[in-house]
Amino acid sequence: MKDLAIGIDLGGTNLKGVVMEKNGAMQLLTRVPTQAAKGGQQVLKNIIGLVSELMAKQGGAERIIGVGIGTPGFIDGDGTILGGAENIPGWKRTQVFQPILQATGLRVVAGNDVTVAALAESRYGAGRGVQNVALLALGTGIGGGVMINGHVYKGTHGMAAELGHIPVETGGRQCNCGQRGCVEQYASSPGIAANAREFCKSIPVGQRTAFVEEVLARPDQVSAKTVYEYLNTGDPVALRVHEYSADMLARAVGVILNVLSPDRVILGGGVMKRNHHMVDSMTKLAPRYAWPQIAERCDYRMAECGEDAGVKGAAALVFDELV
Amino acid sequence: MKDLAIGIDLGGTNLKGVVMEKNGAMQLLTRVPTQAAKGGQQVLKNIIGLVSELMAKQGGAERIIGVGIGTPGFIDGDGTILGGAENIPGWKRTQVFQPILQATGLRVVAGNDVTVAALAESRYGAGRGVQNVALLALGTGIGGGVMINGHVYKGTHGMAAELGHIPVETGGRQCNCGQRGCVEQYASSPGIAANAREFCKSIPVGQRTAFVEEVLARPDQVSAKTVYEYLNTGDPVALRVHEYSADMLARAVGVILNVLSPDRVILGGGVMKRNHHMVDSMTKLAPRYAWPQIAERCDYRMAECGEDAGVKGAAALVFDELV
Repeated sequence: MKDLAIGIDLGGTNLKGVVMEKNGAMQLLTRVPTQAAKGGQQVLKNIIGLVSELMAKQGGAERIIGVGIGTPGFIDGDGTILGGAENIPGWKRTQVFQPILQATGLRVVAGNDVTVAALAESRYGAGRGVQNVALLALGTGIGGGVMINGHVYKGTHGMAAELGHIPVETGGRQCNCGQRGCVEQYASSPGIAANAREFCKSIPVGQRTAFVEEVLARPDQVSAKTVYEYLNTGDPVALRVHEYSADMLARAVGVILNVLSPDRVILGGGVMKRNHHMVDSMTKLAPRYAWPQIAERCDYRMAECGEDAGVKGAAALVFDELV
Repeated sequence: MKDLAIGIDLGGTNLKGVVMEKNGAMQLLTRVPTQAAKGGQQVLKNIIGLVSELMAKQGGAERIIGVGIGTPGFIDGDGTILGGAENIPGWKRTQVFQPILQATGLRVVAGNDVTVAALAESRYGAGRGVQNVALLALGTGIGGGVMINGHVYKGTHGMAAELGHIPVETGGRQCNCGQRGCVEQYASSPGIAANAREFCKSIPVGQRTAFVEEVLARPDQVSAKTVYEYLNTGDPVALRVHEYSADMLARAVGVILNVLSPDRVILGGGVMKRNHHMVDSMTKLAPRYAWPQIAERCDYRMAECGEDAGVKGAAALVFDELV
């Protein structure tokens, strides 16, 4: 009986692979270097190698339903990478499904890495028990993933849920997507660091806290982590930086509420590590930016799947789309 | 064999009722006064009366699958009105499904009026042949409706797709939803009229066009219709008002693109009557506010179902949710 899925999480540094049961139990978990700099074809070879290795270790293909892949960027329904993964040269326009099928005999499905993380949270983590969920992954950028009526929503060409590119400030900071004022520029880790630098410059000398001194001394080394470490010591300027960052995030969450009316918004990504402040702030601030009846029916949670969200979500996609 | 649906479109002035086949053919179409001012219970009685009348005219319940209702505001999955229809006193908190079922023996489904209009466009109009669609109804406000993977998306509590309340100008015009800068304040008929008044005031005396003279003479009587009538005569100030209104709408459409990656955006409502300008402008402007790969895969259409969109969509909901 076919009851297992292989999941592959394509990261800039490592490929993670898993053999997973439908209940989320991981039978095998392994990682190999992505070798992103060697280009899309090498990455594809490495994925095939990893799938073959997992299949062999598991004892053959007999129980394997198929392979799910979580990748940065956009992936079309036919398995063609449409773009958005600039750190892998030549990954764009790569056809992913056919080569893996030919090499391994296994059917393949794929989704954006944050989209599949939303699926993982929905099945095994903070999204259990609700049907409509938005995940925001706050890291070097802001990724998004959306569950609609209990299923992952990709859009026809795998490009839905670019939640980091909701503008929150008209004419605001330039974003690498070409727009201005995207929430990614204010509530990702580099965005929060930029908020910190802006705030700290404006603090008069006599009112400088330890946080301000550190930011001014080493502005290039500031990250969201710096802000939240000082916030946890009670630094009032770090608190103001957080409140500003959270308000900007809340504006985007308000838009998500008005468009999708989700039951739950889940916050994940590196910025959320050991940081409960953002969830508390969303509960308070997001309702200011949405219809009251919608806001009343939405709650906010920390992501629970951690670093395995991508690989578990990729495998979960197999149970969702190939069974 | 049960093969017909009753659809009811609840308007502020009239209740429209239809008996419809699955292919959209309307066997009976009738209307009675809503009597909104008499309150929610009277409106409910009038709906029951209209359903009974349609059922009798059709020759009994034998072929009727059920009743679909399109209503302003939010309607929960269990048939309770959650709010957002302030022109009908006491409509909020009314339980709609049970009384109709008890009086007529017919099962009932319901959705927001613009949501069901999106379903009508998807099945019988401008949304045929694509899976993911957003409808914007530009009228006295801006309503929204969303089709996801070929099905109407309501959110768990029937409140999704409040697309008129996407902010497009930080700190902009006060909206009746409590926020500032919602697109409804700039691209609904009253919003476009407000744009016209603002622009015309700023035109120096020597450069006043016929449009400017009219707007300044009768500022309270300006509507979107005024703008588009003068635009069709080639008035350059009317053109500028349109371009500004369209740019504001494009900002909201850009957000919808980044969140939902729809295959098609349909524009409907009173503002769009005899007005192709807005569709042309969206094609040009919306890509400025969205990821290029997403914008490339979305097109823009005029709504096609006209004033019957609501009642046909309400009936279509029966085929979607009760069969």
